[in-house]
Amino acid sequence: MVAGEVRAGDGLAGRSTPATGKVLLVAGTHGNELNGPWLFDAWQRDPCLRPDTELALVLAIGNPAARAAGRRYLDRDLNRSFDPDRLADAGAQALELGRARQLLAAHGSAGTDPCLVAIDLHSTTASMGNSLVVYGQRPADLALAAALQRRLGLPIYLHEADAAQTGYLVERWPCGLVIEVGPVPQGVVHPTILRQTRLALEATLEVLAEARSGPLRLPRELVLHQHLYSLDLPRHGDGAPRAVIHPLRQGRDWQPLRPGDPLFLSDAGETLPYEPGAGLGSDPVWPVFINEAAYSEKGIALSLTRRQCWPVQASWGAALAQVAATLIAAP
Amino acid sequence: MVAGEVRAGDGLAGRSTPATGKVLLVAGTHGNELNGPWLFDAWQRDPCLRPDTELALVLAIGNPAARAAGRRYLDRDLNRSFDPDRLADAGAQALELGRARQLLAAHGSAGTDPCLVAIDLHSTTASMGNSLVVYGQRPADLALAAALQRRLGLPIYLHEADAAQTGYLVERWPCGLVIEVGPVPQGVVHPTILRQTRLALEATLEVLAEARSGPLRLPRELVLHQHLYSLDLPRHGDGAPRAVIHPLRQGRDWQPLRPGDPLFLSDAGETLPYEPGAGLGSDPVWPVFINEAAYSEKGIALSLTRRQCWPVQASWGAALAQVAATLIAAP
Repeated sequence: MVAGEVRAGDGLAGRSTPATGKVLLVAGTHGNELNGPWLFDAWQRDPCLRPDTELALVLAIGNPAARAAGRRYLDRDLNRSFDPDRLADAGAQALELGRARQLLAAHGSAGTDPCLVAIDLHSTTASMGNSLVVYGQRPADLALAAALQRRLGLPIYLHEADAAQTGYLVERWPCGLVIEVGPVPQGVVHPTILRQTRLALEATLEVLAEARSGPLRLPRELVLHQHLYSLDLPRHGDGAPRAVIHPLRQGRDWQPLRPGDPLFLSDAGETLPYEPGAGLGSDPVWPVFINEAAYSEKGIALSLTRRQCWPVQASWGAALAQVAATLIAAP
Repeated sequence: MVAGEVRAGDGLAGRSTPATGKVLLVAGTHGNELNGPWLFDAWQRDPCLRPDTELALVLAIGNPAARAAGRRYLDRDLNRSFDPDRLADAGAQALELGRARQLLAAHGSAGTDPCLVAIDLHSTTASMGNSLVVYGQRPADLALAAALQRRLGLPIYLHEADAAQTGYLVERWPCGLVIEVGPVPQGVVHPTILRQTRLALEATLEVLAEARSGPLRLPRELVLHQHLYSLDLPRHGDGAPRAVIHPLRQGRDWQPLRPGDPLFLSDAGETLPYEPGAGLGSDPVWPVFINEAAYSEKGIALSLTRRQCWPVQASWGAALAQVAATLIAAP
């Protein structure tokens, strides 16, 4: 590798990136998730309230236009708009594609004010608690998630191999993950959600600072919930839903679901049990994002995961250390 | 009173109404409250699932355009659009005013398919539980609410004397109230909310049927929560919020709030206690609609009420019996 460069992560492979960069914190990627932006506003007004960190930060509201409208997005979901091919298509002019290009031009790893790590703050109507989402199996992301799990015990959703859902923001930075907190309704600023979001973010900055000054303490094992597939609500022939999440499953994200367990309740009052997909046998699965309001339009009533316990690889820590070593100190 | 006519309730005083009419059930008055419309869809598809009642019903989606858009409203809040003066203003052309006129022309007490009672199904992000809202002190409404409280113990919010919030749908029918269920995020169909909504609605229809065949059993006393005033979030000089609902108050609708109790939490982490308004002294107040997402734009963080225990008047039952006697039986 050329001196003064660090090879960027998956998705930017082969492109050179600047020697150093900042940490990008994004909130309001979805305009009706208000808790992250509320924190940013408070920190903007009174910098003393900002998380105490030695790292240089950039704070960005992901989708200001959608935030002003109080909607998740205007033209298309910004957090499904970071596919490189789509962004490269000059004919694709949705507002959110323009915003994605803008964010990358300004704060991408090759941007005018480059950032090398992206932390994207989200909330959900599902009972996800304080949790992390990582996309794919990039070593630096796995190290960051493992270190956070070691500190706070946060559950981790590994989202991958889902052709229907692609183009997440953090994938376009060399390292990054989503902090996902719930349940909270869209459009509500909630004191507990604020506190959880801040807690996870502070821990993230601490881990990055520790990885920068090294060595980073990592756990031996990483427990994560690996995406299997998503389930839609059962539907009538005309496409209208014929069931809702079963009351015994509503709010039970991260809890095992076994074949035969109640999953949906039909409009006629019939309990519809979970039937495992091909190849899953009788093993339990772990549902996440149960009844997330915004996923209804995507035909997702919940996503099923496989609970995994992976030994932490030394190479993950090395990958994170490599990125962290290039992070700029706060002025 | 002229034979064959019943004098309509407050708001229609002096207008003659037809001898008989149906019960109007409205859901989706706010387009992002999905649980009532979900029930209507199921009943439309399979009439066997409808509540068992001897009364003729009309089911209407309040704001179909807003429902299709997944938003509370398009131009203005439909449930603040029923002021007679505003409706009479031919120059006022908001979509929701047109819809209000349409509903009244079709199903008002003097409409083409007249209804004499209106039950409006709502949900809220606040922890209101299964509750009722009545507007003003119309005797028939109070009798209906009292009979429902006797059956199900539902708490009742008496909304009145609030010049900033007027023009509620049910006020334009001789008798009517809102069934308000929460907490549930906007845009979420939730099994518990469905069940609570259905339960309250079935009980309402039972009470109306009982009042029609008479005599209606009423409790001796009615406990209700009478609107005092609403509170906005504390704000900075530029109008931005400087606090959120305090974690010890979030979710505690219908529970007493005493002077000095924590009410808000500032962005700097300071607890801001409740300070009673003029004339309230040290008496407790009972907050409702704490942190309702849709009220943020109205500058309402919560509403304060006074808990009242009123002796039930015989005249209330007589007023409800008079309306109920004119209700048409199901075909």
